Amino acid sequence: MLKGNAVVGQSGGPTSAINATLSGVIRGCAKANEEGVIKTLYGMRNGIEGFLEERLVDLGSHFPDEEWLATLETTPAAALGSCRRKLKSHDVDAATYERMFEIFKKYDIRYFFYIGGNDSMDTVLKLSEYAKEHKYELRVVGIPKTIDNDLMATDHTPGFGSAAKFVATTVKEILRDVSVYTVKAVTIVEVMGRDAGWLTASAALPEISGDGPDLIYLPERVFDTEEFIASVKSAMEKHPAVLVCASEGIRFADGEYVGSGGQSGAVDAFGHKYLSGTGKVLENIVKEKLGCKVRSIELSLPQRCAAHIGSLTDINESVGVGMAGVRLALLGNTGVMATIERSAEKEYSVSYGMADIRTIANEIKTVPMDYINEAGNGVTEKCLEYLRPLIVGETAVKYENGLPKHVII
Amino acid sequence: MLKGNAVVGQSGGPTSAINATLSGVIRGCAKANEEGVIKTLYGMRNGIEGFLEERLVDLGSHFPDEEWLATLETTPAAALGSCRRKLKSHDVDAATYERMFEIFKKYDIRYFFYIGGNDSMDTVLKLSEYAKEHKYELRVVGIPKTIDNDLMATDHTPGFGSAAKFVATTVKEILRDVSVYTVKAVTIVEVMGRDAGWLTASAALPEISGDGPDLIYLPERVFDTEEFIASVKSAMEKHPAVLVCASEGIRFADGEYVGSGGQSGAVDAFGHKYLSGTGKVLENIVKEKLGCKVRSIELSLPQRCAAHIGSLTDINESVGVGMAGVRLALLGNTGVMATIERSAEKEYSVSYGMADIRTIANEIKTVPMDYINEAGNGVTEKCLEYLRPLIVGETAVKYENGLPKHVII
Repeated sequence: MLKGNAVVGQSGGPTSAINATLSGVIRGCAKANEEGVIKTLYGMRNGIEGFLEERLVDLGSHFPDEEWLATLETTPAAALGSCRRKLKSHDVDAATYERMFEIFKKYDIRYFFYIGGNDSMDTVLKLSEYAKEHKYELRVVGIPKTIDNDLMATDHTPGFGSAAKFVATTVKEILRDVSVYTVKAVTIVEVMGRDAGWLTASAALPEISGDGPDLIYLPERVFDTEEFIASVKSAMEKHPAVLVCASEGIRFADGEYVGSGGQSGAVDAFGHKYLSGTGKVLENIVKEKLGCKVRSIELSLPQRCAAHIGSLTDINESVGVGMAGVRLALLGNTGVMATIERSAEKEYSVSYGMADIRTIANEIKTVPMDYINEAGNGVTEKCLEYLRPLIVGETAVKYENGLPKHVII
Repeated sequence: MLKGNAVVGQSGGPTSAINATLSGVIRGCAKANEEGVIKTLYGMRNGIEGFLEERLVDLGSHFPDEEWLATLETTPAAALGSCRRKLKSHDVDAATYERMFEIFKKYDIRYFFYIGGNDSMDTVLKLSEYAKEHKYELRVVGIPKTIDNDLMATDHTPGFGSAAKFVATTVKEILRDVSVYTVKAVTIVEVMGRDAGWLTASAALPEISGDGPDLIYLPERVFDTEEFIASVKSAMEKHPAVLVCASEGIRFADGEYVGSGGQSGAVDAFGHKYLSGTGKVLENIVKEKLGCKVRSIELSLPQRCAAHIGSLTDINESVGVGMAGVRLALLGNTGVMATIERSAEKEYSVSYGMADIRTIANEIKTVPMDYINEAGNGVTEKCLEYLRPLIVGETAVKYENGLPKHVII
C-alpha cells in the first residue's frame, strides 16, 4: 500500500451532484484513513488554480460527520470552488508542473483526485504522465461529472441525472402553464448542451406518462428552418399551445450555430464559442414566419444547480463513483477515470469500473442516431429507455426557514 | 339557504397554488352538497371565455376523491384553463351579460366563484352589481390568487408563497453556482413583478440564514444607474461574484421602464406594456461601465408554475381560502373577496375574512417604503419578517417515473 496524503479538487462547471462525489471521496478516504493508508485528505480550493497557490483545506476533519456529509450531498455547485484552468503541455510550461510537484512533495501527497468533465480529464492525463516520467509515485484518478453526459467510457455522468430531472420537471410544469389559454402560442425552451443533446433529450421524459413537448431539437442533427416551421404549424392544428425544446448548440446546414446570430463570436478559455440566444433566434423565426404569440425561455444556470430537485439515483451514484475513485487509486491505478457501468439486466442497476484516461480526455460522446426520430424533431423509445432510470427518486433535502440547507466549506 | 348549483372559474396568469384553491372550492361545495344546498359544482373552462360558450365540466364527480384532490393541490397552473378576458361595462356590452345570465338560469347557477387577480376581481364586481340590478339572486365571490402579492385587503395572496419559495431557493442555488470561480463576475437575476416588488423582495429570504444576493432592486423605488454601478463595484471588493436581483418593472427617474429598451411598446389585452429584457439592459450597463464578465438570468415562467417547490403554508392556505370563499357565499355574501388575515400574535397563524370587492378591483398593493432599505438596493428586517413564514414547509408532491404527478381535467 502506498502511504501518504491525498488531495481532491473540483473543476469545470458546477453541477447539483459534484459535491455528492466530493462526499464519496471523503467517505472513501475515511476508510483508507482507518486502514492507515491515507493520513490527511486535503481539498484544493478552485481546482489546480488554488492548488498552485497552496490554498488547501483539511477535509479529514469531516471524516466522521454523517450529517455534514449528507447536507454536502444535496448542496449544489462546487463547495471547494472550481476553475477553468487547463494545464498546458509540460514542454511549454514546465514551471507549472515543477510547482505542482513541489507542493505534492511538501504535503507528501500520493493521491490526486480530480472531479470534472473532459477538460479536467486532460489535467488528469497530463499529471499522471508527468509523474510517471519524473518517477514521483502519484496516483492520479479522474472522477467524472458533467450535466452534459458527454464523457466517453461511462454509461452516463454523475450530475446528468439531476440536471435531466430538473429539465424534465420544469418542461412538464411549463407545459401545464402554457396550456391554460386558448390563444395560439409557441413557447421555446432553450436547454444547455453545446455539442451533445443529452440534456435536451431529457425534456422528452414526461412522454413516459403521456405528456411532453411537441418538438425537440438536438445538436446531433442539422437544424432545418423549413421543417421547424412546418412542424410547429402541424402541432398547432392539434392544440393551440405548442412547446418546443431546443439545445443551445443546434446548427444550420452550413455548420453555423443557430444561436450565433446574437453573438459576438467570443470564446471561453478553451476556445469554445460562447452560445446563448438560440431560443431568441427561434422565437424571431416563429414571429416572422407565423406571426403568432411566441416566447422563449432559457433554462440557464438552474440546470446545473437546482439541487432541490436532484435525482436520488444520480446523487447516490455520484457518491458511489467518488468512493470507487478512491478504491481505484488504492489498488494502484493512475491515469484512469472511474466509470459507471449499467447492468445488462432488465432491472436498472450499476457497478463502478474504470477507463484509461487517454480514451476520454478531449473526446465527446454524442446522442446516437437511433435515439433521435426520423424527422429529427424528437427522440425514440430507445432514448427514453436509456434516460428513464436516471431521474428516479427524490433526495432528502434538508430545509431551514423554508429553504434548502447548504454546506459552505 | 339559497339552493341551486355553483360554478367555479380560474382567470389570469397561472400560479402553483390556483389549483389548490380550486380544490378548496370543491371541498367547500362537497360539504354544501351534503347539507343539500349546492347540488352540482360546475367548472368553467378558460374562465368566463369558456363559460360564455357553455364549456362546463361537472366537478361534483370528484367530491369524495381525496387522492385526486391531493394531486390537484400540487398540480401547477389552472387545471380548468384560464383567460385574460375582462368584462366591459354592461352599458357598452349588454349582450355578454345577457348571455351569461341566460346560462346561469339554464343551469340554475346561484353561486359563482372566480379565482384570480385584480383583473378577475373586476369581473366579480361587475357580475355582482349586474345581478343585484337585475334581481337575479346570485352570490358572486372572488378568491384571490396571484404570484405578485399585489391585491389589497388580504395580508398576502395565495400563490405568492410558492412563487417566493421558488425565487428564494433558485437565488440561493444560483449564489452557490456563481461563487465557485475566482474571476470577477456579475450575475443579474430578473424577477417577475410589473408594479409591485414583492416577489423580487423574496429573493432576500436566504439572508435569514446569512446568505443572499448583494443587491435587490424593486419597482417601488426609482432605479439610478450611478448608484447601481457604485454598489456593484463596492460589492465586488468583498467577493468576486456579485449577485443582483431586479424586478422586471424597475424604472428610471423619468418613469421609463429599464426593460423597455429592448421592447416594441406592445401591450397586453389590459393595456399593460409587455416587459422583458430588464436583466439584459442591466447586463449591458455592467458590460459597458465595468467591463467585467456579466450574465443575466430571467427566471421566467417557472416562477408561476414550479409547483415541485411549492410552499406548504401557501398550498394549505390556498385550499383554506377556497373553502372560505364557499362559506362566505353560503352565508349570503356577494360582491366580496375572501381574504387571508394574519394574526397579531408572535407565532404565525391566519384566519380567513372578506372584503368588499370595490376596495380591491383594479387597485395595487405595493411594497411599503419601510420594507426597503435607505439606499433602495435591498430590503429591511421588517420585510423579511413579513415574508419569512410564507415559504415555510414543503408540499407532499407525488412522483411517477421520477416526475411530479399532475391532474389534468
